[in-house]
Amino acid sequence: MADALKVGIAGLGTVGASLVRIIRERAEELAVTCGRAIEIGALSARDRSRDRGVDLSDITWFGSAEAMATEADIDVFVELIGGAEGAADQAVRAALERGLHVVTANKALLAKHGVELAALAEEKGVLLNFEAAVAGGIPVIKALRESLTGNKVSRVYGIMNGTCNYILTRMEKEGLSFQDCLREAQRLGYAEADPTFDIEGNDTAHKLAILTTLAFGTQIAADEIYLEGISNISIQDIEAAADLGYRIKLLGVAQKTESGIEQRVHPTMVPRDTVIAQVDGVTNAVAIESDILGELLMVGPGAGGDATASAVLGDIADIAKSRPGEQRVPVLGTPAKALAPYVKARMRSHEGGYFIRLTVADRTGVFASVASRMAENNISLESIVQRASPQPQAAAGSKTIILVTHATTEESVRNAVTAIKGESYLVGEPQVIRIERPKAF
Amino acid sequence: MADALKVGIAGLGTVGASLVRIIRERAEELAVTCGRAIEIGALSARDRSRDRGVDLSDITWFGSAEAMATEADIDVFVELIGGAEGAADQAVRAALERGLHVVTANKALLAKHGVELAALAEEKGVLLNFEAAVAGGIPVIKALRESLTGNKVSRVYGIMNGTCNYILTRMEKEGLSFQDCLREAQRLGYAEADPTFDIEGNDTAHKLAILTTLAFGTQIAADEIYLEGISNISIQDIEAAADLGYRIKLLGVAQKTESGIEQRVHPTMVPRDTVIAQVDGVTNAVAIESDILGELLMVGPGAGGDATASAVLGDIADIAKSRPGEQRVPVLGTPAKALAPYVKARMRSHEGGYFIRLTVADRTGVFASVASRMAENNISLESIVQRASPQPQAAAGSKTIILVTHATTEESVRNAVTAIKGESYLVGEPQVIRIERPKAF
Repeated sequence: MADALKVGIAGLGTVGASLVRIIRERAEELAVTCGRAIEIGALSARDRSRDRGVDLSDITWFGSAEAMATEADIDVFVELIGGAEGAADQAVRAALERGLHVVTANKALLAKHGVELAALAEEKGVLLNFEAAVAGGIPVIKALRESLTGNKVSRVYGIMNGTCNYILTRMEKEGLSFQDCLREAQRLGYAEADPTFDIEGNDTAHKLAILTTLAFGTQIAADEIYLEGISNISIQDIEAAADLGYRIKLLGVAQKTESGIEQRVHPTMVPRDTVIAQVDGVTNAVAIESDILGELLMVGPGAGGDATASAVLGDIADIAKSRPGEQRVPVLGTPAKALAPYVKARMRSHEGGYFIRLTVADRTGVFASVASRMAENNISLESIVQRASPQPQAAAGSKTIILVTHATTEESVRNAVTAIKGESYLVGEPQVIRIERPKAF
Repeated sequence: MADALKVGIAGLGTVGASLVRIIRERAEELAVTCGRAIEIGALSARDRSRDRGVDLSDITWFGSAEAMATEADIDVFVELIGGAEGAADQAVRAALERGLHVVTANKALLAKHGVELAALAEEKGVLLNFEAAVAGGIPVIKALRESLTGNKVSRVYGIMNGTCNYILTRMEKEGLSFQDCLREAQRLGYAEADPTFDIEGNDTAHKLAILTTLAFGTQIAADEIYLEGISNISIQDIEAAADLGYRIKLLGVAQKTESGIEQRVHPTMVPRDTVIAQVDGVTNAVAIESDILGELLMVGPGAGGDATASAVLGDIADIAKSRPGEQRVPVLGTPAKALAPYVKARMRSHEGGYFIRLTVADRTGVFASVASRMAENNISLESIVQRASPQPQAAAGSKTIILVTHATTEESVRNAVTAIKGESYLVGEPQVIRIERPKAF
């Protein structure tokens, strides 16, 4: 049997502590499967004294992650610190410079510096694995980087934030408001005290930026993502969606179009009888549409100490099983030097169906006016429904008009909505939700 | 750049022809991604003259697969012949003996000789990849063999036969009989002229046997699988299932129990609001439940020339990216020599919920008698419904009793059903369908 693979783990939060425990408990099985033992050669975390439920006293401890990366007697540097800058960034660079393999769960770091780090890993002939950075335990990085080799991806999309999906699911199942569900998510530990990063879509955007690069072979462009969170989704939207045969999910979508690549994160209506519509609660799902394989959907836990640790361990095992020397698996699917420039498709050019909910004064002629504004912008309607306004807070004498369009452009919809905003009958802000249709299931 | 990887392809049906086309069309991209070119070095098929839509005249042709395996100037032998014995078996053995890597899509071969072939590949230090053998384009082999390293799997199950899922979906959506849907499937090319192998569950069983070994590290035991096909599923069962909140799917299930491993293929009721229940038509799905990762579900195309070729190409690409020399990825997840004996759990010990549909004479006391037979066998009922028999062919004066049990054992259910068969009020055969509940979603 080959020499043991020595890993150094930086960051001992929930994931790190889980990883240490698993590597120890499963030492024998891992040695059999990987053809060599996996040993923990070094640890680093801010607070050495904290009780993490595992005895760490016999492992070499480093006060800083960078010191561990530079000095420890290890083969693999595992980064579980988090954050795009500072300790995580410095330590990962130091480890790669030294010729260590790196495993990281850090989506922010990759979304910001992924291309540079990939280039460095490739120059040094080491592996940089990051399965845990996107959709936790779901092996979507491996699918894109390995299984889909030779395929041309046309679209990748998914539910990649458990907090948002939990809130939307609760709203639908129990008819509760966004605020009530957010509080419940916070109480259960599914949402942070400051939930902005999750509910406004930033977390999904980081993950999407990484998937886009793997799917399309372009430079990472995390700052070029159209972003819309779920905080203005009301129970009225969810109910109207259900009536029309849809569910609302926060999706991250990257799609190839004639004018470039669309990257967008927004509340999305998906047809209720599709598989992804059935993904509820904190569960994540990622779909990949490609020209040879067709459609592939993977569903699983997007977070949690154990699920994330499992993904990290899979990455470590891949390193244990591989031969030393120059590596041929490009970090980002395409060698960093061969990544194409990212050409952004204008959001205004986005094509698809739209759901539009308007609260309007209950007067004669309003329905006809709304329909005219749509027609003037060449928007063809799948359905238009008028109903008494169910909103208790709505002005008396108001009613709701719900439109579902056939495929049209974002530009047309924005123009139509702007025109309607100029009408005196409109009460409050129009709600616009994009519709996304899975290709095969 | 390293030398080109030369592949020899044996078998040029739909998958083989698709593979040849893709390797040629995507030559440049493949070379970039894999760090070396992939070239077709040799071909072999029964009929050289057949038009396969691709020009094959410049490739060295072998009259027999075994001759190609033995003599061709290639690094990888790709077996797309099919069948557990004969040409495929001989050629794969010859290729491994010679020290060639092997990629195969042949589930029958692996279900029968997988352990021997894995041992041979490991002895020779070559890779034996077979992603396409189970659930076509879904990367379930890679997930079990690589991503889940370190996990203990508790259950793996899935919809792995597109023909059956197509028929069951059509029956449900259109209220058609099994025979009508089968004919439609045959007309569309989703079912063979002789569909027995698919509809009686044998095809699913081959795939399940392979998954069981990967999931539990035991010897392949394809002959130890409990088998029940879908040919006796009636529209009444499907409608009753729908009324009760279930859908009927043909599942292959491998599950660890205290007394051993259950392997079973049978029509199964799954709760309608689970993700797998939404998988319709020819689409496949495989779920893996494990202790660290949790639940993972993958959905995608289970067959088709391109989807299968994509999986084969992924396997070839993995070989292209790996270093030469002794390989550390065990073919079956666990090294062949370390596989544990397969200990079969008795089907009679299976625990779960059951759906039982009885056609009975419309007399006083029958309902009470049925309920008593259940109670005598310690079967606790979730629901018991009596309704007028909707079956036109049923004897006049008959009615239907539908029972759904709480978790009980197969033995108890069989005993209860045997007791009821002894009663004079029973009309025709009782229908018994097992219920399977996904753990997380």
